[in-house]
This record gives sequence, structure tokens and C-alpha cells, in this order.
Amino acid sequence: MPKILILNGPNLNLLGTREPELYGNNTLSEIEQICKNKAQSIGLEVKFQQSNSEGELVDCIQLAVNTTKGLLINPAAYTHTSVAILDALKQYQEPIIEIHLSNIYSREPFRQHSYVSPVANGVICGFGAHGYLLAIDAIYRLISDKKEV
Amino acid sequence: MPKILILNGPNLNLLGTREPELYGNNTLSEIEQICKNKAQSIGLEVKFQQSNSEGELVDCIQLAVNTTKGLLINPAAYTHTSVAILDALKQYQEPIIEIHLSNIYSREPFRQHSYVSPVANGVICGFGAHGYLLAIDAIYRLISDKKEV
Amino acid sequence: MPKILILNGPNLNLLGTREPELYGNNTLSEIEQICKNKAQSIGLEVKFQQSNSEGELVDCIQLAVNTTKGLLINPAAYTHTSVAILDALKQYQEPIIEIHLSNIYSREPFRQHSYVSPVANGVICGFGAHGYLLAIDAIYRLISDKKEV
Amino acid sequence: MPKILILNGPNLNLLGTREPELYGNNTLSEIEQICKNKAQSIGLEVKFQQSNSEGELVDCIQLAVNTTKGLLINPAAYTHTSVAILDALKQYQEPIIEIHLSNIYSREPFRQHSYVSPVANGVICGFGAHGYLLAIDAIYRLISDKKEV
Amino acid sequence: MPKILILNGPNLNLLGTREPELYGNNTLSEIEQICKNKAQSIGLEVKFQQSNSEGELVDCIQLAVNTTKGLLINPAAYTHTSVAILDALKQYQEPIIEIHLSNIYSREPFRQHSYVSPVANGVICGFGAHGYLLAIDAIYRLISDKKEV
Amino acid sequence: MPKILILNGPNLNLLGTREPELYGNNTLSEIEQICKNKAQSIGLEVKFQQSNSEGELVDCIQLAVNTTKGLLINPAAYTHTSVAILDALKQYQEPIIEIHLSNIYSREPFRQHSYVSPVANGVICGFGAHGYLLAIDAIYRLISDKKEV
Amino acid sequence: MPKILILNGPNLNLLGTREPELYGNNTLSEIEQICKNKAQSIGLEVKFQQSNSEGELVDCIQLAVNTTKGLLINPAAYTHTSVAILDALKQYQEPIIEIHLSNIYSREPFRQHSYVSPVANGVICGFGAHGYLLAIDAIYRLISDKKEV
Amino acid sequence: MPKILILNGPNLNLLGTREPELYGNNTLSEIEQICKNKAQSIGLEVKFQQSNSEGELVDCIQLAVNTTKGLLINPAAYTHTSVAILDALKQYQEPIIEIHLSNIYSREPFRQHSYVSPVANGVICGFGAHGYLLAIDAIYRLISDKKEV
Amino acid sequence: MPKILILNGPNLNLLGTREPELYGNNTLSEIEQICKNKAQSIGLEVKFQQSNSEGELVDCIQLAVNTTKGLLINPAAYTHTSVAILDALKQYQEPIIEIHLSNIYSREPFRQHSYVSPVANGVICGFGAHGYLLAIDAIYRLISDKKEV
Amino acid sequence: MPKILILNGPNLNLLGTREPELYGNNTLSEIEQICKNKAQSIGLEVKFQQSNSEGELVDCIQLAVNTTKGLLINPAAYTHTSVAILDALKQYQEPIIEIHLSNIYSREPFRQHSYVSPVANGVICGFGAHGYLLAIDAIYRLISDKKEV
Amino acid sequence: MPKILILNGPNLNLLGTREPELYGNNTLSEIEQICKNKAQSIGLEVKFQQSNSEGELVDCIQLAVNTTKGLLINPAAYTHTSVAILDALKQYQEPIIEIHLSNIYSREPFRQHSYVSPVANGVICGFGAHGYLLAIDAIYRLISDKKEV
Amino acid sequence: MPKILILNGPNLNLLGTREPELYGNNTLSEIEQICKNKAQSIGLEVKFQQSNSEGELVDCIQLAVNTTKGLLINPAAYTHTSVAILDALKQYQEPIIEIHLSNIYSREPFRQHSYVSPVANGVICGFGAHGYLLAIDAIYRLISDKKEV
Repeated sequence: MPKILILNGPNLNLLGTREPELYGNNTLSEIEQICKNKAQSIGLEVKFQQSNSEGELVDCIQLAVNTTKGLLINPAAYTHTSVAILDALKQYQEPIIEIHLSNIYSREPFRQHSYVSPVANGVICGFGAHGYLLAIDAIYRLISDKKEV
Repeated sequence: MPKILILNGPNLNLLGTREPELYGNNTLSEIEQICKNKAQSIGLEVKFQQSNSEGELVDCIQLAVNTTKGLLINPAAYTHTSVAILDALKQYQEPIIEIHLSNIYSREPFRQHSYVSPVANGVICGFGAHGYLLAIDAIYRLISDKKEV
Repeated sequence: MPKILILNGPNLNLLGTREPELYGNNTLSEIEQICKNKAQSIGLEVKFQQSNSEGELVDCIQLAVNTTKGLLINPAAYTHTSVAILDALKQYQEPIIEIHLSNIYSREPFRQHSYVSPVANGVICGFGAHGYLLAIDAIYRLISDKKEV
Repeated sequence: MPKILILNGPNLNLLGTREPELYGNNTLSEIEQICKNKAQSIGLEVKFQQSNSEGELVDCIQLAVNTTKGLLINPAAYTHTSVAILDALKQYQEPIIEIHLSNIYSREPFRQHSYVSPVANGVICGFGAHGYLLAIDAIYRLISDKKEV
Repeated sequence: MPKILILNGPNLNLLGTREPELYGNNTLSEIEQICKNKAQSIGLEVKFQQSNSEGELVDCIQLAVNTTKGLLINPAAYTHTSVAILDALKQYQEPIIEIHLSNIYSREPFRQHSYVSPVANGVICGFGAHGYLLAIDAIYRLISDKKEV
Repeated sequence: MPKILILNGPNLNLLGTREPELYGNNTLSEIEQICKNKAQSIGLEVKFQQSNSEGELVDCIQLAVNTTKGLLINPAAYTHTSVAILDALKQYQEPIIEIHLSNIYSREPFRQHSYVSPVANGVICGFGAHGYLLAIDAIYRLISDKKEV
Repeated sequence: MPKILILNGPNLNLLGTREPELYGNNTLSEIEQICKNKAQSIGLEVKFQQSNSEGELVDCIQLAVNTTKGLLINPAAYTHTSVAILDALKQYQEPIIEIHLSNIYSREPFRQHSYVSPVANGVICGFGAHGYLLAIDAIYRLISDKKEV
Repeated sequence: MPKILILNGPNLNLLGTREPELYGNNTLSEIEQICKNKAQSIGLEVKFQQSNSEGELVDCIQLAVNTTKGLLINPAAYTHTSVAILDALKQYQEPIIEIHLSNIYSREPFRQHSYVSPVANGVICGFGAHGYLLAIDAIYRLISDKKEV
Repeated sequence: MPKILILNGPNLNLLGTREPELYGNNTLSEIEQICKNKAQSIGLEVKFQQSNSEGELVDCIQLAVNTTKGLLINPAAYTHTSVAILDALKQYQEPIIEIHLSNIYSREPFRQHSYVSPVANGVICGFGAHGYLLAIDAIYRLISDKKEV
Repeated sequence: MPKILILNGPNLNLLGTREPELYGNNTLSEIEQICKNKAQSIGLEVKFQQSNSEGELVDCIQLAVNTTKGLLINPAAYTHTSVAILDALKQYQEPIIEIHLSNIYSREPFRQHSYVSPVANGVICGFGAHGYLLAIDAIYRLISDKKEV
Repeated sequence: MPKILILNGPNLNLLGTREPELYGNNTLSEIEQICKNKAQSIGLEVKFQQSNSEGELVDCIQLAVNTTKGLLINPAAYTHTSVAILDALKQYQEPIIEIHLSNIYSREPFRQHSYVSPVANGVICGFGAHGYLLAIDAIYRLISDKKEV
Repeated sequence: MPKILILNGPNLNLLGTREPELYGNNTLSEIEQICKNKAQSIGLEVKFQQSNSEGELVDCIQLAVNTTKGLLINPAAYTHTSVAILDALKQYQEPIIEIHLSNIYSREPFRQHSYVSPVANGVICGFGAHGYLLAIDAIYRLISDKKEV
């Protein structure tokens, strides 16, 4: 059963309480649960992590290098400021999908640039918690495509 | 059975022949077919259109206003240059999803700005033809959520 | 009886339904009617056209070249993106007035630049449908001044 | 009989002598006279002022706050440099129209930004002295609309 | 006899009447004729088209894909605004030459950027109608070079 | 008893009536009174002035040069546009504090640059009328520190 | 007794030794002591924290959400680079004051932009350690105002 | 005896006391005296004025229009911010020379742009009070040249 | 027999060895030879020069002023950096054509600005050595047109 | 034996595996070993540290303040984003050298700005692991020069 | 008798023939002669040089270092592009005056930045050949002032 | 014995006299001597050149193409302005190292961009004359690495 990492950036641990009109009502552990259910149903194992620290997120990506077959990342605030996460992702050879709960392209200008996008296979944003499920679907496809090659 | 419009911008009619490493090998009519299959399986009807003309795309959106429950748009080149399409979409009150076959955020700078994103509910890009299926999934959810409210 | 062309850009055909707080409640055919009434009262004939297509708007301007004595244009979205309309207007030797229903200078930054303004005699914006009547007044004056010279 | 203020910025006192190809041949007192005639004919009283001083223009606007029903302002050079006039106009609750004799959007880049536009109901520019008459027409309409509400 | 497409953008249909000091006195059909004469003399067949519509120009380029051996394009106003034409040209595998009647690099700043140049083999500008003949010469050479390889 | 000047820029004379959610409900003379009370309680004399004119504000600062021991300035709109006030403040050798009623750093971009800040000892903004009292506290400390040296 | 958090960013632990002409001679624990004294005298309890880590500062703010009635933050270097702290502060519903020891607006350009200011009630900068006492005064007032409402 | 106006902008009335290393030790009345001596020796009459008010400086220029044969202006701070003075100078048909005591091109970036320079015949800066004498020399020459024509 | 100058900028002396995919395989003396042949065949005499020194290129242009009837210049690297060459070319009254071997508009951004273009009659780029022959053709036409006038 | 700190930023712990064509084949512990050998041979003691966390890197620099005589830093991704590290380095009074394995000035634009360079004595980049040895050589010289003074 | 160097940049050798409305009718040798006459009359010796080469101008400045007491430089085109001349002038310890025949501040934007101005004592521009005489006057004063100190 | 070229740009011939706090006390011939000693000790022959002329520096690089095995260049002022030197270096196939005596990244903004860096293997700056020795060390290594391959 291929394992994927779902990595969550700063302040996502408070999800469900902060600005629900932007980010929805689900808590992060609810999202973790629906992700695990969805993944299991299509034969993927999920490792689900969150950190407020840029350095710890880099650590998590490094650990995923040889232990996972795909990476879903919602870098939250670090999307816009972290070259360190970009550099860590460049070491990761398996498919990468960038997720955002809100549609960052309709927000402040500084939220419209992502250091992560250039190294992601694709981006899914604006669908709240449902975006995680779409991303699991998408990474399953990318992993399958790769296996076939 | 709720109807959705899937609208495709300039040069997508040549899909499958142009730069396959960027856009994949599927022709547009193949994509149309898999979209219709997918939609039917979850109870959505699909109207599928393509045009090379900015004005015709505006016409299509205007016609969709009271006749559809959701709109998927891959504006292609007009993503980056068309205020007219933006204005047309502002008239459309149902859910809108922006799709791109390639990951536009890893391409030339002028492809990283979208006039459409600020009025879309969400964006899905970088997954080739599969992105259309993810978007059908997503719009089904948005239409359902709206009905529940 | 001198003829003038009143030319309307994309999405103005839906007027009266879209964002009335910005654009007012009048439909475009109502505006056409009050324009014709006003014009007739001061001895001007009106040709009133609308198109969603940049190319067709260029066609309309070219046709007006030797057949009209003045041109009122509300280029809508193409105000901000069309060099083709600018180039067509440069061929037109009679008075040109640019109209906008809303005050574009109090809106998004990309709506504050007009390719049309540098070749217009004057600009009237922010007065909704009434702006068309003011513009008819103004072009009547410009045509008269020209005749006197 | 509702009173309106027509306020004129720096160097407009020399009108009729300076760059007539840009600003026309009318002196400011001629413009004052035709404005008063026009206004009287439609039932408006006019207060007509000019100053070269930014501070005095702010004073004039402040005095107009509870004593007038509409404000026509040709801020001339201060259009482009005065936040103080912008702030004064924000205190004024009645309709405001910005006028320019020349078409500022076809001149030097620094003349294409107006601090005043975002707080004006509308803008009329490029029609010389005739623009004042158009503006009186327009403000009459705005005052009437307001009364009706 | 190899066929080439000579494609002309908006407002070029009015050539010979508009701003002759910039664009010369030749009408477009005169240019068509001298192009055909020149081409025939060196063994090339010419298809000569003009459109004011961005979408139609895209159509023309798509149709040229497998039917011509070279493409001369004078995109006129769309030079500076059309990503759709750029994308269409990227599908065209034969030699492409960009022509301008006037020297665009000595004109307004917005005319000094071309979306087309990065996908053209070369650029010829500033020689009026004569530039078309130089371009036919040049594309003949490019087609010959290609055949030799 | 050391004297300080509290200098207020354009439109502050209308305080209490304009945009109370931004600037609070206190009139300027109420603020003058609470400032004088506060100052007296800690042994400072207050000169309190307001002007809508940039030139008069420069005059006030010049007069304060040898007659006061500290200067509190709320330059209002001139914060963002006046080099003349900056130059006047450079002649003033005693402590200077810049005050703003609203938090200018959360407002329009043009309000986020201050010509005054580089020559002020410190800045206090966003606390409404209370900011004046904090500033009196602060300047008292700065004057005392200076005396001790 | 309402509790407030006073949060200090990177390198402030070395205060008193680093660049005293910019930041003063007080150590951070001296500042902690005078803050606690001042707060106690007006009936506020103080929690005083410092960290060099962006992630830990986010943690501190999250913990303060339901346990404190006000937040004073000197984000130091993270003022200019941390969207994560901005996002954490957006979750905090009580009054927030931003403090800087030096006058950041008279320093290098990159120090003149703060991600924190738009979500702070007010800003106090340039008064060294005394700024903390002014901020305690100010937050006391903001807490009181809120209670009264 | 031809008359010239020497006009001095804000803060120049404090000359000799402010930043002598930048502006020199001469007071403005000393400069007035040496200017009058110099002018008299070559047959020119001098009117010497100073104001801190932008509006008054505009007034002075307007009054000089038909009463003087040349204008020397040291606009000081208004050099960089006043379009009103620029517009006033455009009305002045006789020679204009811009003077600065300090070398503004070696100072802060905002001091390196002058609204006045484009309408001045020439610029002299960096020579302190001596620059006024050089300018009198220069304007004498310009006036003489003009007479000869 | 009218003489033309063909002037070549820095590093073109090494042609044929450097980056042949960009600049082709011809050496500069081969280009000189084919130019002379071509010119002779249409009745033009060629002076062919190259220098790595900006100053020497200026010298060459100055010498050409009264001795030649047309100038072809490939300014190479100085295209993008030399105002001195621009100024020299402004003294040259006969036709000027700018040539580049590669298509500079598809290269690094700094190569897309030319100081020379604004004073050239036309530009030919991207055709390798063949561009010189096209340019000879073009200048012959320009010289002939001039004679006819 | 003087001690120096060699500090390594994020992702350098994975050296030798990531993008070897950019960063070389040496692992970080191999680099540590050759650094220690080299240092010992010229009489320097080495403390060698790495962290993925910006805050920990700040901690390391703070600890080095009174315990080391020189600091070599390869800030990796934080080079371009960390003001906190810049501020920590400003506290460090001994020589500082910035090292990069790759030539950052030939990479993406965002990698061409370093917050660290302005406080470093010198920069060495592009020499892979060998750059560390050059830097040890260089810091030895700087430490010696300092001792001699 | 103190010696000064008057140094002239590229294309000034053709003075009197090129664009006389910008640069006047005097040839450079006429200017040399009037400069020498003027200088002699006040006790200065003049060395007068011109070169089209940036490197030779650097050579001339280096030679002037210990052999002259003042330097007048008209850098012409190199004003805007030469850091090498800037660096050479930084070695020159005596007074430096920058001269331009035309008013560069009223010309193209690229002519409004001077690398030389920050190291010149003062700037004189717009007075044609007469500017040289003003500059000799000015440098005489600067040399005298220096001697007195 | 492999030969390397050490090439020095404008004003370096005056080294040791100009701004010693920036560039050190060594003359260029002293640097030449220590370079030759160092090189000889590790088996490299040195050709050492300096020129104030951009064109001559291009000549030197061209001559080095087939006669040397490595190139050390201190382009001084031309670092920031010369595309010609960049183009010459692109022809050079052996290792290239860019040296600067001072740390250019802590100086004026225009000194922080280098046209040379993108084609250099590495950069060494800020170590004064010692930087040359480090660079000889580094190029020795690069030459050796190349031989081994």
C-alpha cells in the first residue's frame, strides 16, 4: 500500500475556528479523518502532519524522501515566504500537489505568489477541505501514471 | 438533471497535437467524452464548447447565465489578457471553476496572472485532462452545497 | 442631419441586470431609445451598435469613417486591453467621446488605464445612462465648433 | 433654490491667456458668467471660487459642507498632488463632479493620476469651458435623483 | 511550389489611407499583388489574408499548420496584446517571420513589446511595404535551408 | 515650565464629524483641552495650533525653533506629500513626535509613506485622541532625558 | 485582573548589548520588570515571552487566544518577513499593539514595511524601552473601551 | 533697466542657520544684497521674494508675467512636489533659471526629480549663494540674446 | 557609385567560432565578401569595419557623415548600453539600418532594449549573415527613394 | 588556538544527494572533516553546525558571540529571506564570511539578493566544497590582520 | 597660475554642426578659445581635451590628479552610462563641476540620470557654450575658497 | 606549465592611492608580484594585464581564448555596465573567476549587479589583494578538476 504525506503549514492547527468564511468549519483532525478514509478506499496510506515551524516542515519533507510515494502540501503562510521549503521539495522526486483551502488568487497581492508552485505537479485551491480529497484523487492518478511508465 | 457548461478557450481545439509534454496527448473531443461520462455518472448534464474568439466566449458565458448551474472554464491564452471574460463571469451567479491543463504557475511570468481567478470559486491546474474530472467532482460538490443552503 | 455612431463594447448587451449598483437599471435598448430621442431633439441622427467582439468593434469604427460626423464609444472591458480599437480610432478624423457608466477611476487599478483616452476629445464617466446624454450634448458642440472653423 | 459650489484650482485665474490650444480662450469670469446663466435656467444657485492655495481650497470645501447641495471641482494642478483636498472632499456628503478643461488622460503621465477621482461621483474632461455646463447638467440630475430617494 | 501564408492583423485593410507618414501609401491589395509577383518570381505560392479579429487570425494560423511551408505575419495591434496568437504560432513548426510596416521600436513604449517575436525566426520592421518583399526573400532562404538539412 | 508645540494638519479642524469610525468622536478643541490638562499635570505648557495650509504649518514650525522644547505633529494629509514640512522639521533641534489618529499602516498604500517619520524621534498611531496623551508622556520623557545629558 | 501577553521577537534576548544607540541600554529582563511594575500599578497581569523562532512565536500567539485580553508584540526582524505571524494575529480577537524600540521608518527600506501593522490597533515606535510602558497604557485604554461597549 | 524676479521657496527665510554644511552661512537678506549689487553692476533691476506657501509662490510668478524680463527660482522643497508652480511657470514667456544651493543630484532620491527643470532654460546647483550670482550672469546673457533676435 | 558603411560592433571579429547555433558559421570576412559581392551587383560600394571599442565605433560613424549615403550597423553588445553611439548616429543624416544576427527579442531581457533603434529607419534581425544582404537590399531602396525626392 | 564557527543553513544536511550538478557530491560530514583538517593545519579550531530552523541558526550565532574569533556561514535558503539572521550577525563583532556552494548570481533572480552580504566581510561562491577551504584561508588572514592591529 | 582641466566627452568634437537648436552653433575649438580667454583674465591656466573613448577620458582624469587644481567635465553621453568615469572622478580631490550644453532634465528619461553628479561639487546645464564660462567662474571661486581654508 | 590570465579593469592602475579603506594599500604591481609568486609556487604561469578601456579588455579576453587555461577577472566599473565583456567571456571555454577587492554587495545598488557573474564559475569578493591569491588557489583546483575529467 503506497504511503503519501499530507503536510500542513502554520496556523492550520486552529482550523475550524479562524475565519470560517475563508477556510471553512472543519477542524484539522476532521480533515485528517476524511483524508484517511478517502485514501484507504483507493488503497493509499496517509501520514498527516502539521507544524507552525518552517524548519520542522523542512524536516518532514526530508524524512518523506525515501519513505513516501507522493506529497500533498498546504504550506499556508510559508507558501509566500519560504525558499527553504522550496529547496526541500526540490529533493523530493515523487509527485507533489499544492493545496490551499481558500482561493489565494483572489486575496491580497502578497498571497498570489507561491514559492512552492514551480516545483509542484499541480495546484488545487479554493475548495476548502474538499480540496484535500480532490488532491488525493489526483496524486493517486499521478502515482499510477508513474508506475505504468 | 442540473446542466453545467464546460468552456474552452483558444487553441484547445488542437489539443493532443501541440506540445504534448505540456498539455498531454488527449484530443479535445476525447476530453469531452470522458467529461460527459464522468458527469453522467454523478447526475450532471454537460454542455461542452470551444472557441478561438474572445467575443464568442463572452457570448457563451452570457447564454449560460440562466440555463446552467455551474461553469468550468479553461480560458487558455485569454486567462491572461481578457477583461471582457472577467466581466462576463461577474454576471454569472452559479459556481465557477478555472482549469488549466499545465501548471501555469511554473511557466512564463505573463502566464502567472489570471484575470479569471478572482471571480472563480477555485482553481485546478497542472493535471492535464484529469483536471477536468477533478473539476466536475468539485463543481458537483459546490452545486450540492448551494442547494443545501 | 449629421449622423453619429454610438458604439458599445462587451457585456453592455446585458445592461440592467448586471451589478446595478455599478451600472444602473437601464437596459441597453432603453439607453438607445433615450439617446435617439435626445439626438433627434437637437438635430442629430444616431446609429447605435453593440458587440462582444473586439474585431467587430474595429469593423464598426472603420465603417463609420466616412459616414458619420462624430463617435461616442463606451469600450467597456476593451478600454483597458485593446490596441486594435485604439488604432481604428486613430483613422477616424471626426470628434470622439469616451463614455463609461461607472467611475472607472475609483475601481481596480487595471480599470484606471484606457487605451482609448489619448485619441478621444474628451471623457465622461460615472453618470450611468445619463452620461450618454451628456456626451450627445458634448459631441453636438464639437461638431458645431468644427463646422464653424 | 439649491446652491452648488464651483471650485477652481491654481492658475485657472489666468485662463484665456495661457496655452489656449489646451485650455481654450474663455477667461474664468466668462466661464463664471455662463455657468451662472445655465444654473439659473434650471433652478440652481452658483457659488464660484478660485484659489492658488491648497489650504484655501480645503477651507472652501469645508465651508460648503452644510451650505451646498453639490460641488463641481476643477482641481487643476492639485488634482495630482493633494491628499488634503481628497480628505476634505471625503467630508462632503453631497454629489461631487471633477472637471478638467483639457483631456488629462492624453497628457504627461503625472497628469493621469487624480487623487480626487475616487471620491467624485463622475468625471468630465476634455471639453473646455463647455465641460462646466455639462457638469451643471449632471449635478442637477444627481441632486434630483438624491431628492427622489 | 511551396506555399506560404502572409497574415495581416487589424486595421491593415485600411492601409494607404491611414497615417501614410507612418505606414506608407500602398493599399493592402497593392501589397498583396507585389508580394505575389515577387513570390512567383522565386517559386513560392502565396496565400494572403487579413482580419480584424484575434480569433480569426488564430483560425488562419491553425489552418496553415499542415498546408504551408512558411508564415509571414504582420500582427499589427495584436503584436502587443495577444497571447492567443503566440500560442497558435507555437503549434506552427515551419519558419515564421514577423513584419511591421513602421519601426515599432521608435514608437510608444507599449508598441515596443511583442508577444510574437520570441517564436519568430526573425523580425523585419520599418521598411513599409518593401518589408514584405524582404521577408519573402528571407523566408525563401529559411525554407531552402530547412530542405537542405 | 517647558513649552511644547502640538501642531495639527489639514482637516483636523473638522474632527469629530468626519469618519468617526476612523478618527473618533472627539472634536479638536476637546483634544486641545485634554492635552492641556495632561501636560499641566506633568509640568509642561502647551501651544496648540491647526492649519489647512502647508505654508502656515511651515511658519509654525519655524516659530517653534527657539521657543519650545518639544514638538508633537499630526501632519494629516501633508504626511504623505510635504517635503516643505520635512525641511522645516530638520531645522528643529528638540524632540519631535509624529502622531496619527488612525493606523495609517492599515490604509491605502499612499498613506503608508511619511516624509515626516525619518526626522521624528518616534511615531504613535492608531489610538485616536488618546495617542496625543501618550505622545505628551513620551515627549516629557525625551525632554527629561535630554536635560539629564 | 486582566492578563496581557507581551511577545518579543528574535535577537531581543540580547538587548542591552547590541547597538545601544539604536536599541538602548536596557536588557530584556529589565524591560520585563518595568513592564510588570507598570502593569500591576494599573491592574493588569503580564505574561512576558521571547523567542528567536517564528514557529514558537506563532505558538505563543495561538495560546494567548482565549487566555489574554490584549497583546503587545515587538516582532523585531519577523515584522518584515512573517506572514505566519500575521495569520496567527488574525485569529486573535482582542486588542493588539505593535512596538518597536527604534524608529523603523527612518531605517533601511526593507524595515519600513510591516506585515503586522494591518492587523494591529496601533503602532508605537522609536521610544526604546519606554515604548513598552506607553503601549501598556494604550492597551489598558483599549481593553477598558471594549469592556464599556 | 530690465527687471528680473528672484523667487525663493519654503524655509529659505531661515538660511544661514539651517544645516550650513549643506546650504552655507549666508542669510537670505545677505544673498538679496549681493544679488542686487551684482545685478545693478550689469544693468538689471532685482525684485527679491520668499514665501513658505506654494499658493503665494504661484501668485508671485503670475504677477511677474508682464512685469519682468527674467525669472530666477529656487523652489526649495516645492521643486519636488509642486505641479502648481510648474503650471504657473508655463505661463511665463521670458527666460527662467532654476537654482539650488546644494547639489540636489547627490542627495536623497526624492530630491533628484524636479517638476521645474523641464520648463527652465537652465539649471545651476551646488554652488551655495554664489549660484545666484552665476544665475544673474546667465539670465543677463539670455535676456540679451533674446533682445538681439 | 554611392558608398555605404557597414559597421560591426564588439566580438563580431570572432564570428564563426562563437555560439554558432546563435550566430551562424560564417566568419566576419566571409560576410564582408558576400556583402561586397551583393552590393556591387546593385551598384553600391561598401566600406566594412569592425571594432571592439565604443569610442572607435563613434569615430567611424563621424567619419561616415559626409562620405557615405547609407549606414548598416550591427552594434552587437553596444546596442544595449551605448548612448554615445546613439548620439553619433543622430548626426548622420542618411538612411540607417540596424542588423542583428540573432533574434534579440527572444533572448535575455537586457538584450531586448536597443538605444540604436529609435534613430534607425528599420531593423532586421534573426536571419544570421543573410540579414546583411537583406539590409543591403533595403538600404538600396531607401537611398533610391531619397534620390527620387 | 582560536575557534571559528562554520554554520550551515537548511537542506545542507542532505548534501551529496541533492542536485549534485549544482552542489557537488560531498556530504556535509565529509565537508566537516576536510574543514577540520584544513583548519587544524593552520592552527584554527572548528565548530561545525547545521540546522533547518531559522531560529536555531540565530541561537547558534548568538552563542558564537563571545566564544569564537570568526564565523563562516552558508545560509542556504535563508540567505534570501532572513532578516533575523542579518540582525543576529550584526551583533557579532569578529570577521564573517558568506559561502555558497553554487554561484547564486547565475541562478533565479530571488537567489541573487542576500540579506547577509552587507554584514559579511567577504563572499565566496560557486566553488562547491572547495569554497569552505578558501574561506578558512580567508578568515585566518582576517583574524591575523585583526590581531596585528 | 593654477591649472584646470576642461574635459569633453563623445561627439562634442562635432559641435556646431549637430542639432544646433539643442547644442548651439559654436564649434568646440571656439569654445576652447573663449574658455582660455576667460580663464586667463582671472588667472587660471586651461588644459582642454576631448575624446570619444570612455577609457581615454578615464586616462585624462587620472593624469589630472596631481597636476590640476580643478576639473570641468562635460561627459556628454557617458554621463548616463559610465561607472568608470565616476570611479576615476572619486580619485580626484580638487573641485569638480559638471557641465551640459543642453538642459538634460528636459530631455529623454535616460538622460536625466547622471553617474557624475554625486561626485561633482555642482552642476551647470542648459546654457550652451556660455555654461563653460559660468563654470570657470564657479571653479575659480571654489579653488579660492579652498585656498583660504 | 599552464598559463592563466589575470585581467584588471579601469582605475585599478591607481590602486594603493584611491580610497584605501575600500580597496587596501597595495599597488597593482605589488599585487601582480604576489600573484606571480603564489602561482609559481603551485605551477601556474601568470599573464597580468590592466586597461581603462572596455574595448581593450575585450581584446585581451579574445587573445586569451586559445592561449590560457583559466581567467581571473576584476572588471571593476565595467562589472556593472559592460555587455561587451560578458559576450567576450562567453567565447572563453576555460574556467573564469570574478574577483572584487571590496564587498560590492554592501555598496551602492548599481554595484550589486554584475554582468559578468552569470558566466563566471565563481565569485570572490571583499578580501582585498588577498582575494587574488584565493582565486589563484581556486582556479588551480578548477583547472585540475577539468584535466581529471
